[in-house]
Amino acid sequence: MTVVDIVKRTTSSPDDTALVKTLADAGYSTADVVALVAKTEGNGCVNDFSRTLADHTWDAVLPADAVTVFSGGTEGVLSPHASAFVGIDRPAAPEGALVAAVGRTASIPIADLGRAGQVRAVAARVRELCADAALEPGDVHLVLVKCPLLTTESISRCLADGVEPATRDTLRSMAMSRAASALGVAVALGEISEPDAAAALRGEADVWSSVASISSGAELDDCHILVLGNSPAAHGPLRAVHGVMRDAMDARTVLDLLDRVSADGGEVVQVLAKAEADPSGSIRGRRHTMLTDSDLSSTRHARAAVGGLLAGLVGDSAIYVSGGAEHQGPPGGGPVTVVYRVAS
Amino acid sequence: MTVVDIVKRTTSSPDDTALVKTLADAGYSTADVVALVAKTEGNGCVNDFSRTLADHTWDAVLPADAVTVFSGGTEGVLSPHASAFVGIDRPAAPEGALVAAVGRTASIPIADLGRAGQVRAVAARVRELCADAALEPGDVHLVLVKCPLLTTESISRCLADGVEPATRDTLRSMAMSRAASALGVAVALGEISEPDAAAALRGEADVWSSVASISSGAELDDCHILVLGNSPAAHGPLRAVHGVMRDAMDARTVLDLLDRVSADGGEVVQVLAKAEADPSGSIRGRRHTMLTDSDLSSTRHARAAVGGLLAGLVGDSAIYVSGGAEHQGPPGGGPVTVVYRVAS
Amino acid sequence: MTVVDIVKRTTSSPDDTALVKTLADAGYSTADVVALVAKTEGNGCVNDFSRTLADHTWDAVLPADAVTVFSGGTEGVLSPHASAFVGIDRPAAPEGALVAAVGRTASIPIADLGRAGQVRAVAARVRELCADAALEPGDVHLVLVKCPLLTTESISRCLADGVEPATRDTLRSMAMSRAASALGVAVALGEISEPDAAAALRGEADVWSSVASISSGAELDDCHILVLGNSPAAHGPLRAVHGVMRDAMDARTVLDLLDRVSADGGEVVQVLAKAEADPSGSIRGRRHTMLTDSDLSSTRHARAAVGGLLAGLVGDSAIYVSGGAEHQGPPGGGPVTVVYRVAS
Amino acid sequence: MTVVDIVKRTTSSPDDTALVKTLADAGYSTADVVALVAKTEGNGCVNDFSRTLADHTWDAVLPADAVTVFSGGTEGVLSPHASAFVGIDRPAAPEGALVAAVGRTASIPIADLGRAGQVRAVAARVRELCADAALEPGDVHLVLVKCPLLTTESISRCLADGVEPATRDTLRSMAMSRAASALGVAVALGEISEPDAAAALRGEADVWSSVASISSGAELDDCHILVLGNSPAAHGPLRAVHGVMRDAMDARTVLDLLDRVSADGGEVVQVLAKAEADPSGSIRGRRHTMLTDSDLSSTRHARAAVGGLLAGLVGDSAIYVSGGAEHQGPPGGGPVTVVYRVAS
Repeated sequence: MTVVDIVKRTTSSPDDTALVKTLADAGYSTADVVALVAKTEGNGCVNDFSRTLADHTWDAVLPADAVTVFSGGTEGVLSPHASAFVGIDRPAAPEGALVAAVGRTASIPIADLGRAGQVRAVAARVRELCADAALEPGDVHLVLVKCPLLTTESISRCLADGVEPATRDTLRSMAMSRAASALGVAVALGEISEPDAAAALRGEADVWSSVASISSGAELDDCHILVLGNSPAAHGPLRAVHGVMRDAMDARTVLDLLDRVSADGGEVVQVLAKAEADPSGSIRGRRHTMLTDSDLSSTRHARAAVGGLLAGLVGDSAIYVSGGAEHQGPPGGGPVTVVYRVAS
Repeated sequence: MTVVDIVKRTTSSPDDTALVKTLADAGYSTADVVALVAKTEGNGCVNDFSRTLADHTWDAVLPADAVTVFSGGTEGVLSPHASAFVGIDRPAAPEGALVAAVGRTASIPIADLGRAGQVRAVAARVRELCADAALEPGDVHLVLVKCPLLTTESISRCLADGVEPATRDTLRSMAMSRAASALGVAVALGEISEPDAAAALRGEADVWSSVASISSGAELDDCHILVLGNSPAAHGPLRAVHGVMRDAMDARTVLDLLDRVSADGGEVVQVLAKAEADPSGSIRGRRHTMLTDSDLSSTRHARAAVGGLLAGLVGDSAIYVSGGAEHQGPPGGGPVTVVYRVAS
Repeated sequence: MTVVDIVKRTTSSPDDTALVKTLADAGYSTADVVALVAKTEGNGCVNDFSRTLADHTWDAVLPADAVTVFSGGTEGVLSPHASAFVGIDRPAAPEGALVAAVGRTASIPIADLGRAGQVRAVAARVRELCADAALEPGDVHLVLVKCPLLTTESISRCLADGVEPATRDTLRSMAMSRAASALGVAVALGEISEPDAAAALRGEADVWSSVASISSGAELDDCHILVLGNSPAAHGPLRAVHGVMRDAMDARTVLDLLDRVSADGGEVVQVLAKAEADPSGSIRGRRHTMLTDSDLSSTRHARAAVGGLLAGLVGDSAIYVSGGAEHQGPPGGGPVTVVYRVAS
Repeated sequence: MTVVDIVKRTTSSPDDTALVKTLADAGYSTADVVALVAKTEGNGCVNDFSRTLADHTWDAVLPADAVTVFSGGTEGVLSPHASAFVGIDRPAAPEGALVAAVGRTASIPIADLGRAGQVRAVAARVRELCADAALEPGDVHLVLVKCPLLTTESISRCLADGVEPATRDTLRSMAMSRAASALGVAVALGEISEPDAAAALRGEADVWSSVASISSGAELDDCHILVLGNSPAAHGPLRAVHGVMRDAMDARTVLDLLDRVSADGGEVVQVLAKAEADPSGSIRGRRHTMLTDSDLSSTRHARAAVGGLLAGLVGDSAIYVSGGAEHQGPPGGGPVTVVYRVAS
């Protein structure tokens, strides 16, 4: 169990590490960082090299066991930024505080990507992390996962080995990888059963996690996992609440979370949300055009819209809004987590 | 002075005229339509043929003197739709109601586009329309203008005539046309002086209208103008309020307008807003990436974000959010008008 | 059997019908037009309203039984243009000339799109057209088909009827519709067997037509078909040759066709070709990026590249290059037809 | 004077350095590399992080004084690849061979970008490099320059210093930087006069270099320069010829160069060409749509088309085609250099 603080800073480009100075100013060092979660300014899709660039850059700076989640896409008002989760030592009397558990799976075999193998790998690792941190499912407010995708090259390698990958479409592989990871989280937390997950992979079950937030990218071949929860046994500066937006226009759920933060005397530090185009092609009965726009990926549309809503409600554009919410919240909606600071 | 009602319907494509049936169901006919204001699902930029398609389609349906404003771009949650403004006859005792005045300028000469000639043409016509409708500047809640742009072909013709057009860049001509029209509105309503407008065209004055909402397109060569105001002398079903969003995240201004509508016992019928990427490159001190994204026009970014915020706050995605707010509200912000229905 | 001439003109926008005047200048009228084949300047994908706009515009101009093929996408040097195929009466001694046979299928049921039903419908109609024109398979140099796609709306209707459509992805439906039509052409001409076609629909057979050129669009719900062949029984001004580009860089095949035209004393009138990104992800062993570019559809990439090659070789940019060559030529390649005029 | 060989390899991603192994296989080491010239798979515009990623990656591998030119954009059939120019020691009798001269300018002040200061800095450095390599202007077959652009951030800094930069539009700054560098090359080689260059910057002179090939990017703030020429005093494996494509369809010029290579018994090693959308909006009198496509930058269109033509003619897709040819060849055209190997 690691009690955490968050240090956040906007970035001037994906290879900007000025956050290191901000950490120092706050009395922390990069050695304290257990996880780095950043939004970079690429398209968030297959050929998003802003993520890889950030990954290369931070690799040289962070501890080897820190997990990193670089999520591409800062459409609309969203501001590229990085948040360092730093472990802190607070031997004070426990009163409930935000703790983190971080880890990685083994490399996901190409043939397993988007399939049951990935579900099991993620589920197993999330279970271990929760156990290590003594977090019950009900304590967990976010499970952030960064997972791999298929490239033209890895698809070719897979086919050369005589195995048909889950898809030959690279963009679609991002969605399938997110789906498998989300189902893994849901299984680990007891939100759904393993048979549910298997049915969902076959497209036969509309099941979802209320705390999973998954992002896929070409810059890694294992899964990086960050579990955030409020531990009653911890003492620290932060707490979290979460809810589930039922669609991309669900301001009500967000305003309710902000009210709860206020009621607890908190100040919002970071918001982490998932966004997606409603797969039905309409929202509250009105047609949207995100799925028929061949010029612009639906994930870019969705991040821009939900980012615009959240940034306006929270008054902060350096928030984490990630696109593609397969099995993360209901179709068209997604989980949203608000981390806040309480007066010490 | 024409007292107006609004009939709104989502569209299944730019050539969908099912609204005609909705009009009939409401007891109106297309002959009653004084203005049609629609969002179509193109890119809202130079090569947006969704506007032209809608224009061709409605041309065959509407009265010859009706004005039409087709605005491209329904990014994010925004839903393509059309709103018919129908003139109604209400000989009841005046108690204040929404009225419309509509008209067109003469064709804007190519050489005048984005220049003083366009400012003067728009200003003169807006003044006439306000006078005809007996609307004082303080009564006006929206001046919606659709104006032309430059194409590769019209630029060539202009150069062949020995005249350098305002720009040779077709996308930039859209912004310059919007700017000139907005300055024309501001001059007509006494918000700025003519020398202010001239200075603004030279890039030397940050002046703006708080009620102008301008859209440019290739589907016309004159300017279509719709003035909306609350006339104390009228009786009718609708009223309007307006405000100015100071930036793309300004939820406060919108919530205040919605509170005023509630206080008046009203039900929101339509919201019309302008959106743009803050030209400084940042919002509230945080960098945005709308101006450095070479894959996606900043107007598409801005519509998606502001559309996401407004749709969430109002609970309706069939709203009019238009991109490119040059001299329409402060840099990065824009006017927003809420039309609402009061119980009769 | 209709002996045909071609009248071609670049267009200034999708609703430009100036070709009508060019027809008149050439001594023809719109009543003589049996087929109109045009490239319009949209993205060539799902939300390409340039095709629909052209369709609306020409509908009011052409004979009711003329077929129209509007193909979106004029990337790179390609020039938007329209070619009218006009029927001419030449009672001279037969010496071999280009003839056309045109027709339509019935509407393709949504549930049949991209499936065996569409294959059969196209095959049956192509067989009839060949028979009517007394064209043997060996005489045929091009079968141009325009066929429908699935939209978010038609997918919803299909699902509401309890039927799963061939795909829920609108962009993918364009490829599946092209594939089914191409297989239908190949079956009709005896290039492949019906079991081959069935296997190909299941993704289990790499079979293709050497003369099919298929385009899909939202502007129709039946299939428009234009068969072009050299009839030994006809006398007329045009002839055609065709070949199959083995990949998108196959200049050799094109130069050979141009040599044959020269040897026959001909002057090139029009070139019609298909283009696609090699599905293997590489061309001649070198990786291309058309399938991993999430900003730009691979069909746009392919049209631009093949259009650049053909326009340079032929010296004409107003040529017909259409994207997406599923079962039209080998993977990554496509059929190319050169129509030329012989001195009378 | 450095006699050079070229070792070329396709890349699997912008951070792929497998070329190091290919160098070793050829008997070279990275210490021998004087210049690395690569095409990476970004959009080639402002937010192209593929260039920056390649730059970071190679920085750790190459000698400190090697120059690097990373050019984004591999549209259509173009294959991402890297070419190492390695210096070789050949004390044999001179018989004419390709030599290189490489160097950098000082950092270009933001206020000088796209202006006379940049022209002068590039011209001075190119003159020095030619002198060092004992290359007469007539010996030079290519001057490749990589130069900086303006970002939202650098524009803000410039304005804060009270200086108006050459433009506030980041995409336009790429074109202005290319223009200034090209004019610098033309001045250095005596192709144009300094007053010509000054007039050209004001948009009043259509002057150009026949050997300049300029690329701009966010990954550097100085200019990297590579001069290639045939030195009569050298002995080595490579030679070069160059020509100027008069437009994007000019296959003739390219075929002539390939004929000259054949006549010299050579085998093509690399082709380096510039491409741009004809600023007039048409090519050989036929309208193109590259300048009115608001979804896709004209530089991407142009690279795809010219890349398609050159790859087809040469039979190689791993060639260097760079977009934006301001003052590099005539409007709409561009220089093209063919480097070939002669039997030893």
